[in-house]
Amino acid sequence: MEKTSTNSHIPVIGVFDSGVGGLTVVHELKRLIPEVPLIYFGDTARSPYGTKSKETIQGFALEDTEFLLKKGANIIVIACHSAASTGKDLLKESFNVPIFEVVTPSVTGAIKETRNKRIGVIGTRATIESGIYEREIKERGYGFTVIGRPCPLLVPLVEEGWLKARETRMIVKKYLRPLKIKGIDTLVLGCTHYPMLKGIIQEKIGKRVRIVDPSEEVARQVAVYIKEQFQGNLTTKKVPGHYYFSDLGPVTLEVIKRFIKEPMKVEKVCP
Amino acid sequence: MEKTSTNSHIPVIGVFDSGVGGLTVVHELKRLIPEVPLIYFGDTARSPYGTKSKETIQGFALEDTEFLLKKGANIIVIACHSAASTGKDLLKESFNVPIFEVVTPSVTGAIKETRNKRIGVIGTRATIESGIYEREIKERGYGFTVIGRPCPLLVPLVEEGWLKARETRMIVKKYLRPLKIKGIDTLVLGCTHYPMLKGIIQEKIGKRVRIVDPSEEVARQVAVYIKEQFQGNLTTKKVPGHYYFSDLGPVTLEVIKRFIKEPMKVEKVCP
Repeated sequence: MEKTSTNSHIPVIGVFDSGVGGLTVVHELKRLIPEVPLIYFGDTARSPYGTKSKETIQGFALEDTEFLLKKGANIIVIACHSAASTGKDLLKESFNVPIFEVVTPSVTGAIKETRNKRIGVIGTRATIESGIYEREIKERGYGFTVIGRPCPLLVPLVEEGWLKARETRMIVKKYLRPLKIKGIDTLVLGCTHYPMLKGIIQEKIGKRVRIVDPSEEVARQVAVYIKEQFQGNLTTKKVPGHYYFSDLGPVTLEVIKRFIKEPMKVEKVCP
Repeated sequence: MEKTSTNSHIPVIGVFDSGVGGLTVVHELKRLIPEVPLIYFGDTARSPYGTKSKETIQGFALEDTEFLLKKGANIIVIACHSAASTGKDLLKESFNVPIFEVVTPSVTGAIKETRNKRIGVIGTRATIESGIYEREIKERGYGFTVIGRPCPLLVPLVEEGWLKARETRMIVKKYLRPLKIKGIDTLVLGCTHYPMLKGIIQEKIGKRVRIVDPSEEVARQVAVYIKEQFQGNLTTKKVPGHYYFSDLGPVTLEVIKRFIKEPMKVEKVCP
């Protein structure tokens, strides 16, 4: 991102995700830049996105972004890998605001970490089938081997709360086996739910494999951008975030409270 | 259902489900009454329903029904247990057409099958938390014990195609254990995906437990009603069904072909 003159307006970050998983990105943003106003939209009524077709996910991503812009956001963060993988180019063409997303900084992170140029990526079916990680990694250098693996059961296992169950350990092992056999030394967690299983994933893929967590990568990139662009307009006062969800049941509320410790406004909406 | 005079118009059955699972009901209907025109709507863009709140599911069910009526249906079948459990009364109040659904005939089936009056029900979180099976079974007689168990991982396991995997067997066993301990003699499969796991379920719950499959129960009820009401207007010619889906990817198409063997029209729509 090139440095330009400081912006005169106040930055408002709009983050969207198919559900609650994107709160991991918010958690990181709040740690790095707590003073920047933030609006979150979780499309819990239509989640998950990762099992659906490219066209459907793109349509949802356009609607989610329009909703955040209407609510006052002027910087968009796509926290959902399925939406980023299938829709980031379309969103960049369609809206005249800076758009950050989880794929590009993860590619940067993976390229920085790998020594043997063999990179594994796990994610939803939509993310892996988009082939975006392979394309972007190969565009950035020669000699890379990218091995993708869809892991559709990991999201429901996390949502069931079976974070340490024997069944979860077996399923993670089964999913990671082909990546292990191919000798990857770096693994991208290509879905916002997966950091919740980081311990098991690290154990099953092997201690030597470096794990890239896109939530941290994108939050760092957004923080750097905002500090460069808006330094004159940032106060030191913490602002409570505004969280919108298209479905808001007791399970969702519980997850929100687990991730977000600051005062917040939570609202159910039909965008 | 009381017998009235024969209807003069032609019956058109409209079946809706959160996704493809309701095709098990269509499969049964086509076996019993192949000559009756049928329209199906699978809300694959917003599926699953069973993880979402009552209010959200009710809103979806209203929209799905309106869509089928607009397409010409004059008999509605709610093939989705989550929609039937949370929305059947609302739909019956809102629309002036016969509405059939998977819960009531399953209750009848379970009451007929049980000897010791201990009935188990497995389903999504929305279905089990609605408490509808317990309420309806207890309204129909004294001394029943109803034990419900949400099994959120079974739908993703079926959709992943792990129908005989070791992990699936372990998870089914874990979910059924409390029902087994409580000594049920009848088990309702309260989700359209579960018949795909009938073999494993029967093995893990024990051979003596009778399994009630709601797809068969509701199809039988609809067939009896139509034969009574419309006997004068039925031809013997098979009519190809019309299948609408809000998302239509390759996986969905594959599942449709597995269930429906007749000539058919398949279309993607945004209702």
